[in-house]
Amino acid sequence: MTTTKERILDASSELFRRQGLTGTGIKQVLAVAHAPFGSLYHHFPGGKDQLAAETIARAGSWYGQMVMEKLLSISDPVESIRAAFLAAGETLESTGYADACPIETIALEVASTNEQLRVACHEVFEAWVAGLAAWLEGGGVAPTDTRPLALTIISTLEGAFVLARVARSTGVLAATADAMALLVSDSISRASRG
Amino acid sequence: MTTTKERILDASSELFRRQGLTGTGIKQVLAVAHAPFGSLYHHFPGGKDQLAAETIARAGSWYGQMVMEKLLSISDPVESIRAAFLAAGETLESTGYADACPIETIALEVASTNEQLRVACHEVFEAWVAGLAAWLEGGGVAPTDTRPLALTIISTLEGAFVLARVARSTGVLAATADAMALLVSDSISRASRG
Repeated sequence: MTTTKERILDASSELFRRQGLTGTGIKQVLAVAHAPFGSLYHHFPGGKDQLAAETIARAGSWYGQMVMEKLLSISDPVESIRAAFLAAGETLESTGYADACPIETIALEVASTNEQLRVACHEVFEAWVAGLAAWLEGGGVAPTDTRPLALTIISTLEGAFVLARVARSTGVLAATADAMALLVSDSISRASRG
Repeated sequence: MTTTKERILDASSELFRRQGLTGTGIKQVLAVAHAPFGSLYHHFPGGKDQLAAETIARAGSWYGQMVMEKLLSISDPVESIRAAFLAAGETLESTGYADACPIETIALEVASTNEQLRVACHEVFEAWVAGLAAWLEGGGVAPTDTRPLALTIISTLEGAFVLARVARSTGVLAATADAMALLVSDSISRASRG
């Protein structure tokens, strides 16, 4: 049983991801959530900006956990990174190239236009980078390499989503999966050689 | 001396890049371009969609040429890739983290909502991939590696723009510059070993 607030956040997350923040009206969010109009300002007194900030934090946390579970399901970090990129491609394809990163479109929309939401997106990416860096260190990557490598992997996944969505093809996820596997493998080899 | 049509396309390019397609009204484009209202439908009978399609093609071509000139200015492909990423970071920083890829925000906005503009964005990315792949082959990368490597480099740059813009930091461009230099170097080494 979900609450009205959760239904609103589920709807906003889905709509922002597919059509962006500017292209999504409050009325559409409430209609998809089957929520009465008054419920928005009851649950989000700060209006659309508060809804967006909470959507970014919630969707960002959910997506980070999902990717981390995928990474932890395979013990070899090189194969794990490859599998995570390929799985992201499968999700994209199965949703008609709609469902990629839940905060990427918003991040670009707000980066130069809404300071509160820019910071909310930055906090999500920082949490992902920290989680991925810790996982890489556990997999044998040298501590000095973990943050640059985590930044590279997340950047590459985000960019691959852009190209895959406009191409309606998962080819770019396959290409980047191999490249990221090579970078992780190379880092682990260098760390083990000391 | 620029024509009215060129001024409109310069304005739309700048506004779409910074605030997206949905967040940019025709009136704002015309105001920035110092163009009379009637000039929009005179030069773009198809309205906002036609303006957007021509903006995507023109800005995409301009940006691809600019990046390619940067790549060609350094003869060692490994250092050339590194320099291109670092230069993109400098441009970002000097424009207050506003000017990154001119078509990325639009690409995400239209990928699931406007088929004509999705295809226009895809054509731009494909032209960049083809140009970069040809440059990589000239630099000694094995022909079978050039397209996957070009896809990876462009994805990584696009994703790094997202993280850099929301972080208001060029750190991610430095990290990805090193990673892409390593991938290019590795590809050339493997090709030279046969």
